[in-house]
Amino acid sequence: MSDPVFRKLEIVGTSAVSIEDAIARGVAAVATGEAVDWFEVLETRGAVRDGKVHQYQVVLKVGVRVKA
Amino acid sequence: MSDPVFRKLEIVGTSAVSIEDAIARGVAAVATGEAVDWFEVLETRGAVRDGKVHQYQVVLKVGVRVKA
Amino acid sequence: MSDPVFRKLEIVGTSAVSIEDAIARGVAAVATGEAVDWFEVLETRGAVRDGKVHQYQVVLKVGVRVKA
Amino acid sequence: MSDPVFRKLEIVGTSAVSIEDAIARGVAAVATGEAVDWFEVLETRGAVRDGKVHQYQVVLKVGVRVKA
Amino acid sequence: MSDPVFRKLEIVGTSAVSIEDAIARGVAAVATGEAVDWFEVLETRGAVRDGKVHQYQVVLKVGVRVKA
Amino acid sequence: MSDPVFRKLEIVGTSAVSIEDAIARGVAAVATGEAVDWFEVLETRGAVRDGKVHQYQVVLKVGVRVKA
Amino acid sequence: MSDPVFRKLEIVGTSAVSIEDAIARGVAAVATGEAVDWFEVLETRGAVRDGKVHQYQVVLKVGVRVKA
Amino acid sequence: MSDPVFRKLEIVGTSAVSIEDAIARGVAAVATGEAVDWFEVLETRGAVRDGKVHQYQVVLKVGVRVKA
Amino acid sequence: MSDPVFRKLEIVGTSAVSIEDAIARGVAAVATGEAVDWFEVLETRGAVRDGKVHQYQVVLKVGVRVKA
Amino acid sequence: MSDPVFRKLEIVGTSAVSIEDAIARGVAAVATGEAVDWFEVLETRGAVRDGKVHQYQVVLKVGVRVKA
Amino acid sequence: MSDPVFRKLEIVGTSAVSIEDAIARGVAAVATGEAVDWFEVLETRGAVRDGKVHQYQVVLKVGVRVKA
Amino acid sequence: MSDPVFRKLEIVGTSAVSIEDAIARGVAAVATGEAVDWFEVLETRGAVRDGKVHQYQVVLKVGVRVKA
Repeated sequence: MSDPVFRKLEIVGTSAVSIEDAIARGVAAVATGEAVDWFEVLETRGAVRDGKVHQYQVVLKVGVRVKA
Repeated sequence: MSDPVFRKLEIVGTSAVSIEDAIARGVAAVATGEAVDWFEVLETRGAVRDGKVHQYQVVLKVGVRVKA
Repeated sequence: MSDPVFRKLEIVGTSAVSIEDAIARGVAAVATGEAVDWFEVLETRGAVRDGKVHQYQVVLKVGVRVKA
Repeated sequence: MSDPVFRKLEIVGTSAVSIEDAIARGVAAVATGEAVDWFEVLETRGAVRDGKVHQYQVVLKVGVRVKA
Repeated sequence: MSDPVFRKLEIVGTSAVSIEDAIARGVAAVATGEAVDWFEVLETRGAVRDGKVHQYQVVLKVGVRVKA
Repeated sequence: MSDPVFRKLEIVGTSAVSIEDAIARGVAAVATGEAVDWFEVLETRGAVRDGKVHQYQVVLKVGVRVKA
Repeated sequence: MSDPVFRKLEIVGTSAVSIEDAIARGVAAVATGEAVDWFEVLETRGAVRDGKVHQYQVVLKVGVRVKA
Repeated sequence: MSDPVFRKLEIVGTSAVSIEDAIARGVAAVATGEAVDWFEVLETRGAVRDGKVHQYQVVLKVGVRVKA
Repeated sequence: MSDPVFRKLEIVGTSAVSIEDAIARGVAAVATGEAVDWFEVLETRGAVRDGKVHQYQVVLKVGVRVKA
Repeated sequence: MSDPVFRKLEIVGTSAVSIEDAIARGVAAVATGEAVDWFEVLETRGAVRDGKVHQYQVVLKVGVRVKA
Repeated sequence: MSDPVFRKLEIVGTSAVSIEDAIARGVAAVATGEAVDWFEVLETRGAVRDGKVHQYQVVLKVGVRVKA
Repeated sequence: MSDPVFRKLEIVGTSAVSIEDAIARGVAAVATGEAVDWFEVLETRGAVRDGKVHQYQVVLKVGVRVKA
């Protein structure tokens, strides 16, 4: 049908490697159960240990289709 | 009970007709499964084709009661 | 005089019909007592009953002239 | 090509009729010269005369494709 | 595993007693079904009756772990 | 009537005791002259003396009914 | 008494001369009727004619004491 | 015609003299080619040299008429 | 002298007891070394354990006088 | 001359590879015609296909010199 | 070295004379101890006495170089 | 003790290589003198030369523990 409805879920993906990897892990965790169409980055933050970035934490909105 | 708890869901309703129609479609899609009490418009946007508005896309927060 | 001063009042107009009608009712309620020059929409929200929009609630800033 | 670039222009469309009409007029004014893909509403405001809405003024971001 | 994913739910907790009690009730309503790690206060508002605060309404983001 | 109009007033309530007490004092000061329906907290701040909180200052929007 | 209450009014002061002069005119217009304690600048804008600034328009919040 | 369309351009005006002068220079640079109606200040910043303000940098939105 | 200068420090105070106690601990930690004049609450958040609030975390701006 | 004026353009750069690559492509598309001095990231978002990030979309402000 | 690091300090400069003078005093107070590169205005506010502006208070971010 | 206090410092890390490298350099510059626990990205921007990104500039809040 021509008037779809979407839901936006808020997710925090994390990674020790990069911002892109944290996004990918957050998106993948939602995509196991739902049809993900797009993401938006809300916040980028992370944990530090011994003066080094230990974990990137990226807060995402993820758009999923709920009605075709 | 006198201290209810609500959840707020984020929804994108779409319509070729009007902003009000996009809101109605977003609200209705949630209301098939949950008791919707109110909505809040977060963003109004849309798709354009041949110089005309082809689809309104309204991002909504929708409030549903989770505990009476 | 050439340096007017304005006041901005915050109003919530409501309507069962449309967003434009809620704006009109909010503006009209102020305009019975003051000279309204402009409005700005701050928020658009509403009440839902039985899965349908029951009332649009539009929060407005309304500009009124206090000194010519 | 698979990595398009877009420009976003900021436009104010106006109308005496409705918010949707103001959006349409803003979009159409850009679309005479450029390929418009989408719009986003930034602000809705308007002029008041004799206690009535005289003109809706809708501030839009309009997305146009600059490189295919 | 070392790259957890979290979801953030938006909740409105209410209480006649205090802001802290409204937070506790919102958190507890989620925690019956999910492992809550943290909360963030987005808005504090409330209902007034006879010139007195009748109910605090605290809008919260609540973080829950979805993948260890 | 079914389309009420509200005004929102901005108030700063203060208290040496607690945030809730500052809200109550702000709301009560408006409620001596007008029918207050709800409040929204905009900012929480305060004065410090000798390293201790001397006064909480809570900036509120207070909603009052102007037309039934 | 030791727990004062303040109201914040929103004012637009205008001047052909400078930003400071527009603030002064906005503050003065309120101060003819109320005890003004402080101001906060929300927006600075203005009108242009023949490529020159014709009028500064400064939107202010003005704090007035309503209860000692 | 009664439904004009405007474009808003983002400009950074700079000056060693004052904030007002930086606004004037930004507005004037646009006004050589277009009919400027109004400006809005988005940001005020500047460069410092030897502990003194060396240059004011004012980020402006400038409104120009694109269709009468 | 009549033109004081202040610095604003950003602090996170924590407490298991209440929001007010978290503010007090944040303010007190700064006040051992500097003359604190005021605080502003930026964020209120906290940790949850076993479905209960375990720790309030209040992010504050704290104003200290650097030049009389 | 010592008081330059800049324009800020809003661009969306896209890439299948990384956030940095999307920035580079957006900047390069402007730089073919204008002297770009700096960029600012406004939003990072993207398209998802089959549970994987298919395209990064980075919204940029790009600063270009219009008067030396 | 080619990858400098900066710190941003938050300062409130005050003046009875003008906004520019309040900025200058805030910047100068930091510049006695550190190498200031730039400032950004966050808020402009002030105290009022007898209906006149008594003191401008300008909240600034000030950028200082911490590693060449 | 169980109620720690943190300070948040604002830092700009720069790098010619990537956003992640700019974060690492900003964090490392603080961590030579203080125990850094976490970071939050506030802004991502950069310098452009000859149509290419010459330097990423990432504005960070960095959280350091001031009282155990």
